[in-house]
Amino acid sequence: MQILYIEGGVTAPQGYFATGVACGLKENGDRDLALVCSEDVAAVAGVFTTNKVKGHSLKLTMQNIKSGYATAIVINSGNANACVGDKGDTDARAIAAKTAELLECSSEEILVGSTGVIGVPLDIDKVLDGLDEAVSAMDPEGGHEAELAIMTTDTIAKEIAVQFELQGEPVIIGGMAKGSGMISPNMATMIAVLTTDANISRTLLDTALKEICQKTFNRVIVDGDTSVCDMVVIFANGLADNPGIVKQDGDYYAFYDALDKVCSFLAKQVAVDGEGATKLIEVHVSGAKNAESAYLACSAIAKSPLVKTAVYGCDANWGRIITAVGYSGADIAPDRIDISINKVFVCRSGSAAIYDEDKVIEQLEKKEVHINVNLNSGTYSDRIWTCDFSEDYIRINGSYRS
Amino acid sequence: MQILYIEGGVTAPQGYFATGVACGLKENGDRDLALVCSEDVAAVAGVFTTNKVKGHSLKLTMQNIKSGYATAIVINSGNANACVGDKGDTDARAIAAKTAELLECSSEEILVGSTGVIGVPLDIDKVLDGLDEAVSAMDPEGGHEAELAIMTTDTIAKEIAVQFELQGEPVIIGGMAKGSGMISPNMATMIAVLTTDANISRTLLDTALKEICQKTFNRVIVDGDTSVCDMVVIFANGLADNPGIVKQDGDYYAFYDALDKVCSFLAKQVAVDGEGATKLIEVHVSGAKNAESAYLACSAIAKSPLVKTAVYGCDANWGRIITAVGYSGADIAPDRIDISINKVFVCRSGSAAIYDEDKVIEQLEKKEVHINVNLNSGTYSDRIWTCDFSEDYIRINGSYRS
Repeated sequence: MQILYIEGGVTAPQGYFATGVACGLKENGDRDLALVCSEDVAAVAGVFTTNKVKGHSLKLTMQNIKSGYATAIVINSGNANACVGDKGDTDARAIAAKTAELLECSSEEILVGSTGVIGVPLDIDKVLDGLDEAVSAMDPEGGHEAELAIMTTDTIAKEIAVQFELQGEPVIIGGMAKGSGMISPNMATMIAVLTTDANISRTLLDTALKEICQKTFNRVIVDGDTSVCDMVVIFANGLADNPGIVKQDGDYYAFYDALDKVCSFLAKQVAVDGEGATKLIEVHVSGAKNAESAYLACSAIAKSPLVKTAVYGCDANWGRIITAVGYSGADIAPDRIDISINKVFVCRSGSAAIYDEDKVIEQLEKKEVHINVNLNSGTYSDRIWTCDFSEDYIRINGSYRS
Repeated sequence: MQILYIEGGVTAPQGYFATGVACGLKENGDRDLALVCSEDVAAVAGVFTTNKVKGHSLKLTMQNIKSGYATAIVINSGNANACVGDKGDTDARAIAAKTAELLECSSEEILVGSTGVIGVPLDIDKVLDGLDEAVSAMDPEGGHEAELAIMTTDTIAKEIAVQFELQGEPVIIGGMAKGSGMISPNMATMIAVLTTDANISRTLLDTALKEICQKTFNRVIVDGDTSVCDMVVIFANGLADNPGIVKQDGDYYAFYDALDKVCSFLAKQVAVDGEGATKLIEVHVSGAKNAESAYLACSAIAKSPLVKTAVYGCDANWGRIITAVGYSGADIAPDRIDISINKVFVCRSGSAAIYDEDKVIEQLEKKEVHINVNLNSGTYSDRIWTCDFSEDYIRINGSYRS
């Protein structure tokens, strides 16, 4: 199947409107209120943070998404609307109610997301006023403005749209994401909104999203922290002409593959744009005895501040990689471990390989560093995207609120 | 019981000699080979890294300590003697054999430790030549030189000695440690050597050390990584005049308390001197439903780069603390959580407390920051020492080998 990358983001598919306005939550006057809206009520599915502490907006969305249908999502940045008590729940409901009123739909059809600082009550009047502006400003080409309005410490806009044929008809999937710090397996401080005009059953949409998130957004680590407001939501309004996907057949997998591409792209963008990151690191562990060991080894490497600083400093210190594997809890035999960095072997059978140090440094200087670890103990594998750790990470996070 | 802090380190108790020489492993010419030796063969006990990858020197020590008796320990810095294949084992045995020959004892009575870079073969000739010099230089007041020789990225020497009465006789416990990055629960890139002239059974020495390590060295986190060469070893040569401790009575607990003081001091020094650290952070979690939840919540906070950078930047961002508790896996009720920073409450029942921001910032500017979290769900508690995360951590670890 051919998948074409096309221009645009969440408003690339048919029947979506979006915008991003500045309602005053961000002190610097940047856009901080995004609205993405479907012309018709759409099938929706979502994946949410596993953190036991959950933001108030996120909790409302988890509730409203249960019906399987929604019309729009409102996301504010600059405030997480989390850990502020009953006012947080009231505020989330007020946002949904006001949006529903303006869009002339039921408030249960509105999803709400918030990202930013935790524990500070939302200035709800600013948000409600901003909604008036957002609804009048929303536009079938407003996807990029919506993306700008959900960014916090992000430095690059993360958007994508792909077009492909489904049941003989052209279909589009679009998406946008915000990321940066606190991205971990099981998401964190990340929000992604996906839109499609494909006609697909709500159950299959849910199945596809959950499976794909496992391999993409849940395989991104920036600093190992996971947040309280994180969500990936997909809208499918069925406005394309494909007759409809109702079972797991070839058509379903065509849709699945395209959605996988969209989510992989956005997840990698989130890793690349980790706070203070200068490089993308792809950690791949193979030859594991079981799936758990593959995951444990992979995530220990990807989380290790020592590995991440070594990659930043172009230091071929593979001892830190094998050390991380050793404490990961994975079922391993140390003397079977092979490690390569961008295909240059630095460790064979648990000991130093004979390699040219300069050649490895040359690889570490690239914008994308692949760490491959073969445990040589089985057939399971896993893969995680992460980034290096620079002084800027400290600078950004030492003064996030000030 | 009165415990007096006295001058000195590992040579403070009777019958110990030590030294530290420069054998050429550290390129800058600093001391890199330490020897601590007891006049008589001593009862010994040890606690070792739980990393599945283990250094060659450490493996030999784990073997030799099984007898329960030893005469000396040799530790080199500048090279971890880890992940270098058979040569690593041969080198560790050569160090033990040469030392035994010079000290006229059995090579099974020699313990060996190594710390430094992983995966680079040891220049064994330098070490063997250095041993000649070390044995002739060892001195009953050489404890400080030994400490200097085990330091890597440490910036402060970590030594202590305490005197107390045991069974009516004066007894001394001395100790030294190296620490810095990669300290985690279950130790990591840390080595501590403890010495005492107390007369105590080998079994009780072992019991006391294992229990106390759990509460002290295993409750220190610098960056969450754990290393392959880490050990805490204690020698008890019985040269004091106390009749001997052979059961868990009041005398045993007098010894236990003094050893606890020594290990607590060294463990906190290791945290304080974490790579790039500017502050000691003590995280205390109480009110947990069970011991595991107390530990999980405590270590998630202490490991979180976001919490550590916020403390560095004097940012009262308690949202990151409650977030860490939320993803820790601890059994919690979010709306019961209270959080205070140096006794100023910032969060009550899971929501923002009313507090004076300037007052919290004032507390965060101190050299010691206590984060107290009460889960209000039970009676279990735990405590971990860690440090903040500064730009220097990145600088040090981005170029450790170069």
